[in-house]
Amino acid sequence: MIFRSHSKMQIRAMSFKTEDIGQFLQSMFTTPDLGSGATENKCKRFCSYYRTLQDTQNKMAFLGQLSQQYSIDQDAVLQGAHTLASSQDRGEAQVIKSMERLRSAMTPRYQTLFQQIGRIEGGVKFLVDMRADLLGCIGGSTLTSELDTVNFYALNRLLRELLTLWFAVGFLELQRVTWTSPCDIVQKISDYEAVHPIRSWTDLKQRVGAYRRCYTFTHHSMPREPVVVLHTALTSEISSNIHSIIHNPRFRANTPESESTSTQQNRNPSAFDEEEDPSQITTAVFYSITSTQKGLQGVELGNYLIKSVVRQLQSEFPHLSQFSSLSPIPGFRDWLVRQINSQLQRSDIGEEDSGKPLLSQSEIQSLKNVRQSQNASALETFKRFVQSNQWLARQDTVEAVKGALLRLCARYLYLEKRRGLAFNPVANFHLTNGAVLWRINFLADTSIRGLNQSCGLMVNYRYYLSDTKSNSQNYLLHHTIPASPTVLELLRSELSPSPAQNGDR
Amino acid sequence: MIFRSHSKMQIRAMSFKTEDIGQFLQSMFTTPDLGSGATENKCKRFCSYYRTLQDTQNKMAFLGQLSQQYSIDQDAVLQGAHTLASSQDRGEAQVIKSMERLRSAMTPRYQTLFQQIGRIEGGVKFLVDMRADLLGCIGGSTLTSELDTVNFYALNRLLRELLTLWFAVGFLELQRVTWTSPCDIVQKISDYEAVHPIRSWTDLKQRVGAYRRCYTFTHHSMPREPVVVLHTALTSEISSNIHSIIHNPRFRANTPESESTSTQQNRNPSAFDEEEDPSQITTAVFYSITSTQKGLQGVELGNYLIKSVVRQLQSEFPHLSQFSSLSPIPGFRDWLVRQINSQLQRSDIGEEDSGKPLLSQSEIQSLKNVRQSQNASALETFKRFVQSNQWLARQDTVEAVKGALLRLCARYLYLEKRRGLAFNPVANFHLTNGAVLWRINFLADTSIRGLNQSCGLMVNYRYYLSDTKSNSQNYLLHHTIPASPTVLELLRSELSPSPAQNGDR
Amino acid sequence: MIFRSHSKMQIRAMSFKTEDIGQFLQSMFTTPDLGSGATENKCKRFCSYYRTLQDTQNKMAFLGQLSQQYSIDQDAVLQGAHTLASSQDRGEAQVIKSMERLRSAMTPRYQTLFQQIGRIEGGVKFLVDMRADLLGCIGGSTLTSELDTVNFYALNRLLRELLTLWFAVGFLELQRVTWTSPCDIVQKISDYEAVHPIRSWTDLKQRVGAYRRCYTFTHHSMPREPVVVLHTALTSEISSNIHSIIHNPRFRANTPESESTSTQQNRNPSAFDEEEDPSQITTAVFYSITSTQKGLQGVELGNYLIKSVVRQLQSEFPHLSQFSSLSPIPGFRDWLVRQINSQLQRSDIGEEDSGKPLLSQSEIQSLKNVRQSQNASALETFKRFVQSNQWLARQDTVEAVKGALLRLCARYLYLEKRRGLAFNPVANFHLTNGAVLWRINFLADTSIRGLNQSCGLMVNYRYYLSDTKSNSQNYLLHHTIPASPTVLELLRSELSPSPAQNGDR
Amino acid sequence: MIFRSHSKMQIRAMSFKTEDIGQFLQSMFTTPDLGSGATENKCKRFCSYYRTLQDTQNKMAFLGQLSQQYSIDQDAVLQGAHTLASSQDRGEAQVIKSMERLRSAMTPRYQTLFQQIGRIEGGVKFLVDMRADLLGCIGGSTLTSELDTVNFYALNRLLRELLTLWFAVGFLELQRVTWTSPCDIVQKISDYEAVHPIRSWTDLKQRVGAYRRCYTFTHHSMPREPVVVLHTALTSEISSNIHSIIHNPRFRANTPESESTSTQQNRNPSAFDEEEDPSQITTAVFYSITSTQKGLQGVELGNYLIKSVVRQLQSEFPHLSQFSSLSPIPGFRDWLVRQINSQLQRSDIGEEDSGKPLLSQSEIQSLKNVRQSQNASALETFKRFVQSNQWLARQDTVEAVKGALLRLCARYLYLEKRRGLAFNPVANFHLTNGAVLWRINFLADTSIRGLNQSCGLMVNYRYYLSDTKSNSQNYLLHHTIPASPTVLELLRSELSPSPAQNGDR
Repeated sequence: MIFRSHSKMQIRAMSFKTEDIGQFLQSMFTTPDLGSGATENKCKRFCSYYRTLQDTQNKMAFLGQLSQQYSIDQDAVLQGAHTLASSQDRGEAQVIKSMERLRSAMTPRYQTLFQQIGRIEGGVKFLVDMRADLLGCIGGSTLTSELDTVNFYALNRLLRELLTLWFAVGFLELQRVTWTSPCDIVQKISDYEAVHPIRSWTDLKQRVGAYRRCYTFTHHSMPREPVVVLHTALTSEISSNIHSIIHNPRFRANTPESESTSTQQNRNPSAFDEEEDPSQITTAVFYSITSTQKGLQGVELGNYLIKSVVRQLQSEFPHLSQFSSLSPIPGFRDWLVRQINSQLQRSDIGEEDSGKPLLSQSEIQSLKNVRQSQNASALETFKRFVQSNQWLARQDTVEAVKGALLRLCARYLYLEKRRGLAFNPVANFHLTNGAVLWRINFLADTSIRGLNQSCGLMVNYRYYLSDTKSNSQNYLLHHTIPASPTVLELLRSELSPSPAQNGDR
Repeated sequence: MIFRSHSKMQIRAMSFKTEDIGQFLQSMFTTPDLGSGATENKCKRFCSYYRTLQDTQNKMAFLGQLSQQYSIDQDAVLQGAHTLASSQDRGEAQVIKSMERLRSAMTPRYQTLFQQIGRIEGGVKFLVDMRADLLGCIGGSTLTSELDTVNFYALNRLLRELLTLWFAVGFLELQRVTWTSPCDIVQKISDYEAVHPIRSWTDLKQRVGAYRRCYTFTHHSMPREPVVVLHTALTSEISSNIHSIIHNPRFRANTPESESTSTQQNRNPSAFDEEEDPSQITTAVFYSITSTQKGLQGVELGNYLIKSVVRQLQSEFPHLSQFSSLSPIPGFRDWLVRQINSQLQRSDIGEEDSGKPLLSQSEIQSLKNVRQSQNASALETFKRFVQSNQWLARQDTVEAVKGALLRLCARYLYLEKRRGLAFNPVANFHLTNGAVLWRINFLADTSIRGLNQSCGLMVNYRYYLSDTKSNSQNYLLHHTIPASPTVLELLRSELSPSPAQNGDR
Repeated sequence: MIFRSHSKMQIRAMSFKTEDIGQFLQSMFTTPDLGSGATENKCKRFCSYYRTLQDTQNKMAFLGQLSQQYSIDQDAVLQGAHTLASSQDRGEAQVIKSMERLRSAMTPRYQTLFQQIGRIEGGVKFLVDMRADLLGCIGGSTLTSELDTVNFYALNRLLRELLTLWFAVGFLELQRVTWTSPCDIVQKISDYEAVHPIRSWTDLKQRVGAYRRCYTFTHHSMPREPVVVLHTALTSEISSNIHSIIHNPRFRANTPESESTSTQQNRNPSAFDEEEDPSQITTAVFYSITSTQKGLQGVELGNYLIKSVVRQLQSEFPHLSQFSSLSPIPGFRDWLVRQINSQLQRSDIGEEDSGKPLLSQSEIQSLKNVRQSQNASALETFKRFVQSNQWLARQDTVEAVKGALLRLCARYLYLEKRRGLAFNPVANFHLTNGAVLWRINFLADTSIRGLNQSCGLMVNYRYYLSDTKSNSQNYLLHHTIPASPTVLELLRSELSPSPAQNGDR
Repeated sequence: MIFRSHSKMQIRAMSFKTEDIGQFLQSMFTTPDLGSGATENKCKRFCSYYRTLQDTQNKMAFLGQLSQQYSIDQDAVLQGAHTLASSQDRGEAQVIKSMERLRSAMTPRYQTLFQQIGRIEGGVKFLVDMRADLLGCIGGSTLTSELDTVNFYALNRLLRELLTLWFAVGFLELQRVTWTSPCDIVQKISDYEAVHPIRSWTDLKQRVGAYRRCYTFTHHSMPREPVVVLHTALTSEISSNIHSIIHNPRFRANTPESESTSTQQNRNPSAFDEEEDPSQITTAVFYSITSTQKGLQGVELGNYLIKSVVRQLQSEFPHLSQFSSLSPIPGFRDWLVRQINSQLQRSDIGEEDSGKPLLSQSEIQSLKNVRQSQNASALETFKRFVQSNQWLARQDTVEAVKGALLRLCARYLYLEKRRGLAFNPVANFHLTNGAVLWRINFLADTSIRGLNQSCGLMVNYRYYLSDTKSNSQNYLLHHTIPASPTVLELLRSELSPSPAQNGDR
């Protein structure tokens, strides 16, 4: 009951709001800009008003009206275009004048307002947050009409252009975070870590401690707020699994003590105060990169941060020679299950397999050797293993799935495309930066999260600094993915002409 | 000889350069943007190349070609306008598509490049400096064709728009400069002070010392570089002359010691370490505001700085109740001499004076009493005094010119207009901010500079905080200049219907 | 087995060490001090050597030999005293010379060494830590001979004198710790909090957040190491219980969620970012003060920190008018049980009670009403309640013990003395600072710790700033404890002539 | 008249003061120490009172009474000595008790007070300043009685001991001063530079700029106050003259522009922003070291600063291999003139020269060749040159004096002793630090100051880091001065058995 009456109230509030929003926006766009004081005032009212819109529907109504009614004035543009077209005969001066008039007509009315908002204290952060809401609306796929869609996309594009201007490298500050950094910043590093969640303050202390580098970009208009975070491990070789970097107690057989809730966990404080031995450090492994502001989606920041950190590390460790990521493969297991289901379905309906079969003969044999039910096909066995993560429990099942997982992961990363570019977003990020698909690692992240995401696999995208520029261009222009011989070996059968193969049953 | 051959070489270099510039710009604008690395590289080459252009002519050639050949593609725009005009019948979707295409055609090609440059390290500063060069070209009035002029202005407008986006308040940091600030910053404060030049480090120490506040805005992309500087004196009443703020030894009769070149000048160190007595502080007098970057002309910064400083001071001194400028009146003496000459000329040719005569009967009488040559008219005497500053030497001449100077200065500030707004740029700045023309001060700046600029007069523009917003709007919208009764009294005869007056001869 | 052989090895190591120690110390004290380089070297060797002594016995052997063999040279002193005595007749010059010689003979040899150690990097911290060991030896009561005791005490006294010189106020830096302070410092604040242990980072965040002030003294020779920590709550009245200051979830009935081990605990972040309303703040309650260095025992620091914080707060909140501690009463329950046992024993042996009985007639009656066993006397019931904390479970038992606990606590704090001063160390600390015994609070700390320490009672020592100086002098000189009327009322029967009272059985 | 009456008043004030001082001191030393508040109060009153003593005589009266009446209580000591002497037969316990009583009697009463003063805010700085006054009294040689002298010296010794404890390395902070350091600090660096005075801010900017390092020690109890300052030049070889380090315009023939009084002197700003090329830096030349606090005389600080700077530079420039001073030779010319006068006198009275003559035959011949008056002896010529600096004017006179100056300077530095150690204080400082007398440089400081001090000579004391410890010990223990072959060559005739030489006339 309580909930329902509350819900009703909300609806009333909202319906009120919709009208109110219209009036409010009208008042905004009819206020003349007289002096910076008046303009600043107007912008502040805009921000305050928007912040009072607490639920998504009100925000959507607001953004909808804004995007539709205060974008480009079509009539003025059409009129201007006519005038321009007819001005051609009247000399270049007249052409230019007509063009300027048309140009000014083509500026969406909200653009001017956003630029004014960007100039006030806290304005940039407001626009970042408003764009996060907007992306929520777009992603929420509750946009009904095509016109709405077009308008929301136009609003989004304009905001991205403005934010791209404002979040330029020259405006970002590279900062290293250590255990002596301000506590609120360190806590944010913990809260924002999405790739390999931080489980305790002991864990956190290690991630900003010796043989680790945690760097952020912060922006002057959003103080004390890391915008991108990059975690790097300093090692003597390119790490093949995350557990060598993040000391996960589940994997430390000899440390039975459970993590207490107490904050006084550093029983062995020397572990943290450990001094680094620069002679041991030859390799930098980027093992986590996170953008913290949803509203900055599409604004390139991560690659700039990687570049800045590489420069920083090179000046600190002149002998550092290897740079690589150790990256998750989000979506691999989902993709794999879809592939299996699809092939199982085709088998069921007796359809000829046009493409390559998922499993090779030897992989089929291995899986048959470890299947629990004699009735299950190798592919069904594989599917059950993949979905249940049970293969991890026994050494023989681990061996049985290894080959297939590595090979199919290589296929996923190298051959699966969207608009010519790598389908996997992490792969696309590093390949765009000019990295090489260098090594796929088995048993690399055996946390529940790692297993569910990518069957425990992780991948190294390696940065050969002298090649990144040309790699990047080749990738973007010719869609060429540079891969190491090791990875290409995994892909041999994929890339060779497909021989006729017999299915598994 | 050496110089001449060098000079020849320069000429050759330049003629070479012109072709070279064309080729270089073409290479810039035909490079595709593949990946952030390639784009960054392109931008860096652009900046480097431009920086090699050492003389003004080469820079002008470069900016000329850039503004002409890489602005809006007129053909594409005309084509797009035609298409749009003819798309009207084919449904809204088609209209929108045509509009988008037209819109993209209307973006000058250099705009994209500048936005990319703004994203690289040091890029914003580069554009600020390049715009300073551009303003030099425009101001240098060596632009020959109208087309050149149009193009340079378009380039200038675009740069100002971009810089306005980047130099928003949220990106600027308010910093107080004191004697314990970094030495390089303090030195820049000294170097940049243009309104009342700083004569020695002793002088400088006072300007950042007790009962003074020196605030700057700095921008993250230009570290250690104050962008605007505001000097404020904390007093118990609105200062009527600059010498009570800047202790000018010429005016301290009892301190005969000449300033030595030594740095050990603080013989009376206690003067600097003086503690402020907050109970004595009721008034903030802004006595100097300076923009340091020519390339930021037209980007509003000064008024934001004044506002920020007001807020800062109010939180520091809750009982602060009066805010006022003590401002120079650049151009007053020049204007005055022009007025005198004009009236003298009219008298010479026996023309009837249509406007009000410059001097009142009583002023004429006063001047006659102190004239040195019996042949000179009062107006000629006045002119000689004004031009020679000799009136300052004797008490009776000081009294004789006082009334006329104050009255004519009020006329200059209040009645002299350009496009409806105050002709005097300093007046226009403060009136736009919402200040009131409060008091004109006699013998307020008797330095050579002050005498030559404004016959020693200075003016207080007073900020009544509750009225600035409405004052600003009235000024911008209705061209109303708010003035105090004191100033209006000076203007009484000016504003009253002009009675027939007899000339002086 | 493993332990025993290890133990033997230790003994062998130690016996070896004892000789070795002797040789080492001899080498130290025979090295001449030639130049600062050589002396610095000697001091470093001393510190290194001592740090290799890992177990207590070796350290004790070392400190024993040091204190005995390198203190004052008795023979030289006796010789010098003789000479001085006999020099009296030979003129004042001779007397002074003799006196100087005697004076130099009276300086313990280790004093010179310690002064030299104090001059090297990290030397002061070394001496602090060595003194902590020394206090451990003294407190461990394993000192066998009286001579040992005398020597250890002399060494201790000298170290305290030196450390008192070095830990002067002018050498200490007052620092406020907030949530934006360096993470390692904040963690130390958590680790060092002994009075009311910090249970989670959420808890910690509150203790350095709004309406709280956490101040430390740090010493230049021990960077990043808080030496004393004072926690203060800013309130609108003098707090009567710790739970209003430390939000203990056990007492927040409406927040059932258990604290997770996760670091992302701030579900309601606004609680932390809360803004303070200065108009609500009239009172500063010092609710925890901790010295972190055992080796600084006896060096006055806490009272200086309180004074500095009072000054700091007064300048921040000009209207702050009340200052008080909210202090624990360590030892009260132990003392109370001893008193009860003693009276029970006397009753058992039928001894006449010479002193005042513990419970009044009305208290006895109250207790009888709630006793669970009819056989138990009121005193036995009281004892069982006090020892088991069971009285807290029911409202009637809470009421039954309240009066007795408050009254006996007042007796404990006000009348129980050691060498004329308050027996309770916390009381003695605040009374020495000039505070007033202001209020004893019931149900003030109902944590297990609080119940076990002081039956849940806490006390406010209030600081009337104008009186602290005279209060302190009266307390130290005349042993006068200033108490509020409320406390004196509790003590009425104690202070009045003891009438004959009948026991409870 | 005004002055005289003022002067009289002073005298009255002073005579009043003397009595007043006595009363004041008595009140100080009879105040009991009850609580830290009372003690702190007492100390503050002491400091305030002393600060009111404005003239030297009052201070001297104050320090005299303090040193005499509040030092060791002689009677108590004598009594204690007697008791101790007679306690020998009554067991060790009694001996120790007597000894403790005697020990406490031997502590001067002012020591306790000073220790208490050192504990209050600003107390250490007060004692430093008071000791500066005390040294002034001692050095002023106005101490009349021997007893006064003894007492002042005892007071001085005690203060030095206390200050030595407080100005330990662990309490000092090494700070580099650059052009971006706080302006007040940079100004102090300028004001304190006594060795090679800084003539302008341009000069100063260079001394803290590229290829220079300016380091200071600051003390926590005296913030913003450099205690010792060391200027170092980073070069590619050991500098042989100061003008290659300090660009003295007098010596830059090609820079005719005179230094203006303006602060805008950096016409060629690139000179200051010059980047250092680490590959060019092999040598660190300490060219100025200054102690700023007279009251810290005798407290070793300079050598610690040099050591710290060496460590700092080695970590910054791993290939730095040469360390040397470039030092002035204060007192050399005065000594030389005394030597000449003495030999001239002996010649006058026909006394046989027992020691070595000042000039060698070849030197005599050279001097005769350039003498202006045929009557003057070579020695007289030499004397006139040395006293007038006229030898610098002509190339032939420069050559004529060069050999003698270098040789006699080597004699002065190497052979002239005080208590076995080098007579020249700068030499003694560096030799105590373990440096080698490495090279004497001709025409090394041709400023007026340099000529008057040491005939333009300067000396390099070179630090071979591996040898400084043993060098220092040998110097202090055996008075051995290590010298380079070059210097020993200059000394060949000095050190060889003196052959009979003929005088010059």
